[in-house]
Amino acid sequence: MNIQQNHRVSSMKYDNRPIGVFDSGLGGLTAFKELRRLLPQEDIVYFGDTGRLPYGTKSRETIIRYASQDVDFLLQHQVKMIIAACGTVSANIPKDFTKFLSVPFTGVVTHTCAAACAAAKGGHIGVIATPATIRSGAYEKLIHSLSPETKVTSAPCPLFVPLVESGFIQRDNPVTRLVVEQYLSPLRCSGIDVLILGCTHYPLLADVIGDYMGESVTLIDSGRSAALYARDFLSEQGLLASHDKGPGTNHFYVSDSAEDFSKVASVFLGEAIRGEVSRVAVG
Amino acid sequence: MNIQQNHRVSSMKYDNRPIGVFDSGLGGLTAFKELRRLLPQEDIVYFGDTGRLPYGTKSRETIIRYASQDVDFLLQHQVKMIIAACGTVSANIPKDFTKFLSVPFTGVVTHTCAAACAAAKGGHIGVIATPATIRSGAYEKLIHSLSPETKVTSAPCPLFVPLVESGFIQRDNPVTRLVVEQYLSPLRCSGIDVLILGCTHYPLLADVIGDYMGESVTLIDSGRSAALYARDFLSEQGLLASHDKGPGTNHFYVSDSAEDFSKVASVFLGEAIRGEVSRVAVG
Repeated sequence: MNIQQNHRVSSMKYDNRPIGVFDSGLGGLTAFKELRRLLPQEDIVYFGDTGRLPYGTKSRETIIRYASQDVDFLLQHQVKMIIAACGTVSANIPKDFTKFLSVPFTGVVTHTCAAACAAAKGGHIGVIATPATIRSGAYEKLIHSLSPETKVTSAPCPLFVPLVESGFIQRDNPVTRLVVEQYLSPLRCSGIDVLILGCTHYPLLADVIGDYMGESVTLIDSGRSAALYARDFLSEQGLLASHDKGPGTNHFYVSDSAEDFSKVASVFLGEAIRGEVSRVAVG
Repeated sequence: MNIQQNHRVSSMKYDNRPIGVFDSGLGGLTAFKELRRLLPQEDIVYFGDTGRLPYGTKSRETIIRYASQDVDFLLQHQVKMIIAACGTVSANIPKDFTKFLSVPFTGVVTHTCAAACAAAKGGHIGVIATPATIRSGAYEKLIHSLSPETKVTSAPCPLFVPLVESGFIQRDNPVTRLVVEQYLSPLRCSGIDVLILGCTHYPLLADVIGDYMGESVTLIDSGRSAALYARDFLSEQGLLASHDKGPGTNHFYVSDSAEDFSKVASVFLGEAIRGEVSRVAVG
């Protein structure tokens, strides 16, 4: 916090361009919601690739191609930073993906792993995510680079995204409880201390997951971790919007029906969507 | 059968071009399997849009756009007929979709409704399909045009496709049994006589669905109905492959990983896939 304040005082730099956020569809809204809460003055441009979702069951090559097109789309909107609010994209893009990018970029993996290692204090970390994310091994590799001795156990949960998108998110939903039990039983048996929700859809199942795993397991929300990082980064770089700019605006772009997106988005946001929703062609 | 034989004798017309089959991904393989069984001498070109699947939760506009691109792709392969082996596409394309098409085209809705009406004999028909198919009302409208007095009850089953693609297809799978119970309970209570499996993925859940609905309910497989129609149509039009052409070949094209497709395809086919699988860019 000191660094942030010093930087502002010394440079007085501001940047009123919007923050760009993208996801395969709706999951990234959990990160958007946190970003909006943390940075009420920022304009945000969100792109959800609803015409091609989900990404988490597709191949790495396809995920990288779609992510490149998503980034190109956001760059057309003069964003000052891009957040891949999607575990699958963050875990599958190559290291040089952002090499020629003109603005800062972040995914969710790095900051989520840092938060998980801090919470685990050398204990055992569990990772749940889409099949494509687990197959990439990205979370495990990064945890081991931060904390080589930490034990990591991972489990792909291919039905979680469809469950969320089908509205099976109630705490007492018997189907969701059964699927959670089936996927997470090896993690519970292995005695993990921290569980990374490695896909931005999963916070909507946090109640059911938390009930099953028990209070001793700390859940780490990947979208929230990325939003916290983005706030700190923009602040440190003098890239926050100016104080006198007025409240931040939202513009949502989707590659399928804007109406359908608005309906389901309210489930993710816990309230009606605020801001324009436009349909666009991408790719 | 007589018509078919007479036609062959009188015209001796043959056509060795392949049959084109497409689907959003893997579901159409249930129709392909039936087609291969019925017409062992035909060459078949199959396109699965695995890079953009599923279609059943997307908007009508997007479904039509993707279907147009799928058809264009098959036309490049000099097919003699195109089968949309996808309930969602068949239910959502407009009537004039095939107006300028140079080859015969069929979906699954028409022949499935005819088979259902024949089996129901004026009784009550149930329809289960993807949200986009149920929203279109296509099955209900066609059943009522064939048999105005027939009662129709429909239910969207958004989790069935993810369940199949996640391999939750065993007869005793507790998750699948619970989801089937949840979606089909209103249909069972309403006392239907016939149940249309209006999505080509659903035959893989036929055991679980059949167990829940009971022996008195006849299940109608939409992919099988389309394959039966295609055989009869090609025969009547003198478009079957010649007898001395040799065994039919298969060529599968997909818009995501060929390897991933081959793996899951074996579940749909009940055996390892036979024929080349190629990845292509579409749209």
